[in-house]
Amino acid sequence: MKNHFSFIGVADGPWQVTSCEAIVGSPLETVARISVLNPPDAYVEASATWALRAFTSNVRYAERGEIKQLRAKQASLNRPSACCAALIPIKKNDAWWAMAQDERRSILEVQSRHIEIGLQHLPQIARQLYHSRDIGGPFDFLTWFEFAPEDGDSFNSLLAKLRASAEWEYVEREVELRLERDARC
Amino acid sequence: MKNHFSFIGVADGPWQVTSCEAIVGSPLETVARISVLNPPDAYVEASATWALRAFTSNVRYAERGEIKQLRAKQASLNRPSACCAALIPIKKNDAWWAMAQDERRSILEVQSRHIEIGLQHLPQIARQLYHSRDIGGPFDFLTWFEFAPEDGDSFNSLLAKLRASAEWEYVEREVELRLERDARC
Repeated sequence: MKNHFSFIGVADGPWQVTSCEAIVGSPLETVARISVLNPPDAYVEASATWALRAFTSNVRYAERGEIKQLRAKQASLNRPSACCAALIPIKKNDAWWAMAQDERRSILEVQSRHIEIGLQHLPQIARQLYHSRDIGGPFDFLTWFEFAPEDGDSFNSLLAKLRASAEWEYVEREVELRLERDARC
Repeated sequence: MKNHFSFIGVADGPWQVTSCEAIVGSPLETVARISVLNPPDAYVEASATWALRAFTSNVRYAERGEIKQLRAKQASLNRPSACCAALIPIKKNDAWWAMAQDERRSILEVQSRHIEIGLQHLPQIARQLYHSRDIGGPFDFLTWFEFAPEDGDSFNSLLAKLRASAEWEYVEREVELRLERDARC
């Protein structure tokens, strides 16, 4: 399926892992490199240290006005200048998933300004969300970010604002992998 | 994965197919019986006429007040009296999936009263929604309904109201299978 991806921890691959830190909960085994398979390939995954499968989907929270603002500002992945990346797998707790749609939206945007915070860092920080809760695995989401080395401080600021938000009280596991693309950084 | 199911069209199985009608778009091949696998089993699926995989997930549209009303009235599946069932696979068009969350919610409930219409038929018509768009396959959703024979008119009325709604203008394929549980109807 073309909307399904597998992020695999490997010895050889295009993205060098410069750090792998558990922010909340248990860590992921440290690996030298990350490769992204689209679609997933069980044969290739079998030789990886770990594989995290996830899929892109329709918008779950953003409203039309927010989508217009995002589209006006956002950059795509694979910009030549964006040789830095981060892969951040997150698992939210049962209390989050037991909430109604309006309750989750209220925490995500009314209280936490998740979408607005992301907008503040566009177009420098490109972002792609992948879902994994519905297909099992240890995390609910994987978010992939790409940015140029000079925008590293902007990315750190984005993470700090999100982690200080009410939404993050529902995060029970979070791992942060920092990556660099070979021979480009 | 325990939230994943496979609905298979087979020669032998617990649910007898009494009708299989294409409401919009192309039909499904008619089968004698339906069996439900949880979890899916590729070996069993290989011997079926067709297999539709889908998963249960968190609430996507219902707000807290609506969930309270639903929980207060709804019945569970597998009631001994509910020997009639229906399996209704649906695919919505690209325009639906391109909409923002607030736009889809507005059509689903503000304009179409989808949740309210369902509430009007509780507890007689038990319902379980399964998602399949994110894992591929020919439909986006499968909905499974169970009811007693004397509530067949109530179920027909529920379907008529939903199909007359603004939400159904976005349905590009819909098949309706009516089922009876062996030796119980």
